[in-house]
Amino acid sequence: METLFKVDLNKSMDKQDIPGHNRWHPDIPAAFAVDPGESFRMECLEWTDGQIKNNDDPSDIRKVNLERVHVLSGPVYVNGVEPGDLLVVDILDIGTFGEQPWGFNGIFAKDNGGSFLTDYYPEAAKSIWDFHGIYTTSRHIPNVKFAGLIHPGLMGVAPSQELLNEWNRREKELIASNPERVPPLANPPTEESVVLGNVTGSNFDRIAKEGARTVPPRENGGNCDIKDLSKGSRVYFPVFVEGAKLSVGDLHFSQGDGEITFCGGIEMSGWIELRVDVIKGGMAKYQIKTNPVYQPGPVNPHYNEYIVFQGVSVEPNGKQTYLDANVAYRNACLNAIDFLKAQGYTGEQAYMLLSAAPVQGHLAGVVDIPNTCATVGIPKEIFTKNILPL
Amino acid sequence: METLFKVDLNKSMDKQDIPGHNRWHPDIPAAFAVDPGESFRMECLEWTDGQIKNNDDPSDIRKVNLERVHVLSGPVYVNGVEPGDLLVVDILDIGTFGEQPWGFNGIFAKDNGGSFLTDYYPEAAKSIWDFHGIYTTSRHIPNVKFAGLIHPGLMGVAPSQELLNEWNRREKELIASNPERVPPLANPPTEESVVLGNVTGSNFDRIAKEGARTVPPRENGGNCDIKDLSKGSRVYFPVFVEGAKLSVGDLHFSQGDGEITFCGGIEMSGWIELRVDVIKGGMAKYQIKTNPVYQPGPVNPHYNEYIVFQGVSVEPNGKQTYLDANVAYRNACLNAIDFLKAQGYTGEQAYMLLSAAPVQGHLAGVVDIPNTCATVGIPKEIFTKNILPL
Amino acid sequence: METLFKVDLNKSMDKQDIPGHNRWHPDIPAAFAVDPGESFRMECLEWTDGQIKNNDDPSDIRKVNLERVHVLSGPVYVNGVEPGDLLVVDILDIGTFGEQPWGFNGIFAKDNGGSFLTDYYPEAAKSIWDFHGIYTTSRHIPNVKFAGLIHPGLMGVAPSQELLNEWNRREKELIASNPERVPPLANPPTEESVVLGNVTGSNFDRIAKEGARTVPPRENGGNCDIKDLSKGSRVYFPVFVEGAKLSVGDLHFSQGDGEITFCGGIEMSGWIELRVDVIKGGMAKYQIKTNPVYQPGPVNPHYNEYIVFQGVSVEPNGKQTYLDANVAYRNACLNAIDFLKAQGYTGEQAYMLLSAAPVQGHLAGVVDIPNTCATVGIPKEIFTKNILPL
Amino acid sequence: METLFKVDLNKSMDKQDIPGHNRWHPDIPAAFAVDPGESFRMECLEWTDGQIKNNDDPSDIRKVNLERVHVLSGPVYVNGVEPGDLLVVDILDIGTFGEQPWGFNGIFAKDNGGSFLTDYYPEAAKSIWDFHGIYTTSRHIPNVKFAGLIHPGLMGVAPSQELLNEWNRREKELIASNPERVPPLANPPTEESVVLGNVTGSNFDRIAKEGARTVPPRENGGNCDIKDLSKGSRVYFPVFVEGAKLSVGDLHFSQGDGEITFCGGIEMSGWIELRVDVIKGGMAKYQIKTNPVYQPGPVNPHYNEYIVFQGVSVEPNGKQTYLDANVAYRNACLNAIDFLKAQGYTGEQAYMLLSAAPVQGHLAGVVDIPNTCATVGIPKEIFTKNILPL
Repeated sequence: METLFKVDLNKSMDKQDIPGHNRWHPDIPAAFAVDPGESFRMECLEWTDGQIKNNDDPSDIRKVNLERVHVLSGPVYVNGVEPGDLLVVDILDIGTFGEQPWGFNGIFAKDNGGSFLTDYYPEAAKSIWDFHGIYTTSRHIPNVKFAGLIHPGLMGVAPSQELLNEWNRREKELIASNPERVPPLANPPTEESVVLGNVTGSNFDRIAKEGARTVPPRENGGNCDIKDLSKGSRVYFPVFVEGAKLSVGDLHFSQGDGEITFCGGIEMSGWIELRVDVIKGGMAKYQIKTNPVYQPGPVNPHYNEYIVFQGVSVEPNGKQTYLDANVAYRNACLNAIDFLKAQGYTGEQAYMLLSAAPVQGHLAGVVDIPNTCATVGIPKEIFTKNILPL
Repeated sequence: METLFKVDLNKSMDKQDIPGHNRWHPDIPAAFAVDPGESFRMECLEWTDGQIKNNDDPSDIRKVNLERVHVLSGPVYVNGVEPGDLLVVDILDIGTFGEQPWGFNGIFAKDNGGSFLTDYYPEAAKSIWDFHGIYTTSRHIPNVKFAGLIHPGLMGVAPSQELLNEWNRREKELIASNPERVPPLANPPTEESVVLGNVTGSNFDRIAKEGARTVPPRENGGNCDIKDLSKGSRVYFPVFVEGAKLSVGDLHFSQGDGEITFCGGIEMSGWIELRVDVIKGGMAKYQIKTNPVYQPGPVNPHYNEYIVFQGVSVEPNGKQTYLDANVAYRNACLNAIDFLKAQGYTGEQAYMLLSAAPVQGHLAGVVDIPNTCATVGIPKEIFTKNILPL
Repeated sequence: METLFKVDLNKSMDKQDIPGHNRWHPDIPAAFAVDPGESFRMECLEWTDGQIKNNDDPSDIRKVNLERVHVLSGPVYVNGVEPGDLLVVDILDIGTFGEQPWGFNGIFAKDNGGSFLTDYYPEAAKSIWDFHGIYTTSRHIPNVKFAGLIHPGLMGVAPSQELLNEWNRREKELIASNPERVPPLANPPTEESVVLGNVTGSNFDRIAKEGARTVPPRENGGNCDIKDLSKGSRVYFPVFVEGAKLSVGDLHFSQGDGEITFCGGIEMSGWIELRVDVIKGGMAKYQIKTNPVYQPGPVNPHYNEYIVFQGVSVEPNGKQTYLDANVAYRNACLNAIDFLKAQGYTGEQAYMLLSAAPVQGHLAGVVDIPNTCATVGIPKEIFTKNILPL
Repeated sequence: METLFKVDLNKSMDKQDIPGHNRWHPDIPAAFAVDPGESFRMECLEWTDGQIKNNDDPSDIRKVNLERVHVLSGPVYVNGVEPGDLLVVDILDIGTFGEQPWGFNGIFAKDNGGSFLTDYYPEAAKSIWDFHGIYTTSRHIPNVKFAGLIHPGLMGVAPSQELLNEWNRREKELIASNPERVPPLANPPTEESVVLGNVTGSNFDRIAKEGARTVPPRENGGNCDIKDLSKGSRVYFPVFVEGAKLSVGDLHFSQGDGEITFCGGIEMSGWIELRVDVIKGGMAKYQIKTNPVYQPGPVNPHYNEYIVFQGVSVEPNGKQTYLDANVAYRNACLNAIDFLKAQGYTGEQAYMLLSAAPVQGHLAGVVDIPNTCATVGIPKEIFTKNILPL
């Protein structure tokens, strides 16, 4: 299979022969074009563009430049694809680079990124994960070994100008509701650290000003962080621009549901093999209009024995919310961390483990007023010693 | 295995030889006592206490008396168990009654119960599900057949008086924030339609006034609606009162994550076989203090091919929320319903199917500001005809 | 679901209100008739007709009357079904009787039945297995607990007279090749201990003289001992007589591939719920002419971690066979037993465990002359303590 | 991970910089040495050493030189490992070469190799399988697509001289019982087409004369063709010589149980990553003396819906065997082929599909005299159209 997007691991994304991009905009030019039915390989840098190092010092996590993320490979122009079609993308395979057999997870500091439990873990932390074929271990989190569930954290198609405008409108409105908040409510376009392929000059300035940040998932897919979107999956993307303009990045060796430390799963550079196809007029025919739909692949690691923690939507300070699923899932995670601390892990280790391992986060009941019940399930098999009571 | 709690399907819960209860209170007397290590069977009525009939008319759903729910079997007093212990409960088996081989799902009307999508589906609806051994089908939702994942929607231990007081405090506070809301934000204690075992007189009045409604899940477990808490599961309950006082009810033949129609999964009467044990001082030792922890059993139906829908946390009217997981999951469900409507189902059929079938609801990414990504996955194998594009 | 075949556990099969049968013959009259599309329940006695007791003494195994086996429930006449059709049988559910919550496994003595390893374990042995909902344990085999995979060891349709004649011809020919062998090469018809429903008089004598023994699987299905033919399975039977005349028995709570002790899996009395249907002319259309075809059901216990033993087709005495799969599988079993003995089990315990637990027996390579490789895999999860090296 | 054994795909094994070997002998020198705990990558040529081409002409299969097979990579000397130890080998990962994204399956002709059904399919045939990431399809077998279950068909350690002598003794004895048989009963040592690493001169002649052929699996592992020995598996090898001398080859992209066409699974060149370790004195401690033991890995493709065919041990000509598992499995395969022919496949296509796809071959009952029941199960999901009746 031909590699149509290459990266040099020793260079940042803007220095690559064909640079990728780190904003969403319809006018970012395609890096290459393919026909429906074609298969090809793309290489990807890890999402921070090389800012995080394989060492024991979390200062790189603490100081990370989040205006640089996510550096994406693409866009791919698919010939003959038009708005209203469905772009069908098969993830044929994904892998690591032999010369970089490791990834990282980190807790972002509250004042630079934040995380799901940032009020409980406001300081930066880092864990390095070594790859051993299909398995990974971390010198920073003992007694754990598991098979990866490699997936792209981020896949998306370009928005139309109208859709982009709508994103910018609604997100700026949210930011305006509390502009001083730390961490911020959302990230507006910024002209710092922008990478836009080979775009230069006034075009660059215009796109940089308008280009949507890649952090959130949106109608185009984007940073969905769906851990099960692994090898063998098929994705149906709604198409908003000619050629669809597919981009991909933010590869994870593994991730727990929620990617709760924000940084993130086990972040890595690597390669992905894709096959693209089209269903003409598919958006209307299948009523897939707003967000991608997908089928998971058949080779996920299969775990059998979980230990599952629950949380309900009462704030830890005793305040009753109305069915707030975020609170419920946060409590489930805190309960899991308490349990793991009783097993000898530090809180930070337990937190990073929940974000890195193939942990299942479910919404159990969302209607039992006033309490949503959410669960987080940890496969017992990832531990090399027994952690179950009785 | 001895049946220690029996029900007559032709009588309501208050008319049973040993009535169960429908409120949480430490002073509801135990229906029977067992020793740690003992196994026993309990029979359960469906949660509405017989209000819903096997016919095609949803008026019983529309008019349901929600002050009656959930009628529970128990409490079981476990000898020697004390506050601070963990009560270990094994669900050895669960089954249907041969004389009542059906269950129901329904959408509650907005002005009487409501549901997760009540703004989209404000009218009552009902589907009847017939049981064929391990399988179920509905004459109200064609081309669907699947194996049940039988589980108790509700299992819990009695709260201490202090814990009960805290529940009442926080929930009344929430109600007070918008007392006229329809549907209400929470359900306060009420003296209507109360069942409290054999309690009578002034004790009855006192408990009825204080007794917490059974709708929400709380620290004691309760109405968690965890679909994977099926045959063979083991639950670790924190213990708040002498004897733990375990109760169970709200059996489901199957349920989708979220139980989104509120009524609910496939609601049924049936029996459950339990074994209880104790870990003395286990709450501190394992740091299981706030909510039960569980291990799922080994005989869940295994599905292989899912079609997964995503939702992000932007309101359908375009308003950007900050990482609101409820909005994200609601959008995922709406996307799934749109897809199923394109396959020929009515919106109500699709909605009830999502609530009744073994649908997976995951939180994919909860930190990618400002958009949480949630997913809802439908096993393709539940359909008797192909529903996948391409 | 109506019970159309009932048994009284305190009576032998010939004393039941409607007796079943223990021979195959087209002229055994149907116990009842149903229409295609109908569902019904049948009750079954364990295969030896009550000869084996729940105690620690294997003398009942040693002296078992094998002319009595297998006592079957049926036959069921399916209206409108004719030779050349396919009879479709859905196993809707299977279960135990609450009043008899136990089953047995035994090693038959070499001079009365024999077994797969009879040269190594010539003496009779017995293990009793107690049922705890979906789980089983044995006081005779410690540190083991697993979920059952309940299935009928024997399901079959009646042979035509021609097919029956052919069975008798070929089996007598085999017996004649070594008539004195212990254990015998096959079991010819015998007039001892015969049960033939309500047949009496000269008809009884004729059928008893001709009726094929039920031990072997044959073209009609019969004693296939397929452990995965569990709840939710669908079987397609070729039809040889009017009405198909389906019979069922030999229920197992669980069984390992091969049922190597001969007696057998975990043998039990119980009930089974079936639904029957017909594909007219299906034998020719689907070319299912000789043996049944089936689809396994979706609720088998799922195990994740196996320890797998291999055997090749060299006799333990050093004699090289030509691809003899029996020798290979026997060696795999002997290797597994050696391993389990090193873990503290007796040889007999290990042998019975392999026959009772959900053990996987595969043919790995059958062409690598002169050695077939067979494997036997034991799920690690059935042990309550770790048995794996390293 | 360092590649310690490299191959050039354009050269035969004897022309490689460090040649591998195609015989078993204790005196074949190690290609390299590693320490316990070390991980490394090895590259492998497909088993015939490049004889089979990617075209539609099966004449290469018909004329294949079977004295050349299997060309193996290794041996690996593991420092400090001695006879009596267990060598622990983790298969960390396996993959294809991007420059050779295809493999082959073939039916060997009866007079050159033969196969499991050689009396039914005596002519050579070939199918080419293209790799698309984790999936494969064949232009020679339509409507089939499935995920590979990549594994080494052959892994083994060197025999001691005593063990080698025993192999030669017993296999020559078998051959002598019918020396003219076609195909032969076994393959004796031959001096033709021998590859022995860098051995030269009289040593070469001696080893070639004695060296055991690699076709059969034996006490050292060898050509076990265990399809589930895939990524993430751990193997415990008994050790017979200093350093264990591990070799590997015969990689399969996929294989059905039995590898019934003999050639074979989907045969491919590729790479494998291994980690080795040692359990000192493990053979006695764990009683793993005769054959390797293994644990399968966690990422096998998971299939849910099988169609399963049975066979019993009566020869198709009506001759009754005594529990002959080979006959039973052969009949199961013939039944499956008949069914697939009714679906439009040729017999040869169906035969090759059973050998190439992840088909399950089980021994169901091996004691029900006189008929063993064997089954072969085909995952329905490998077909791109529905093949199930009703």
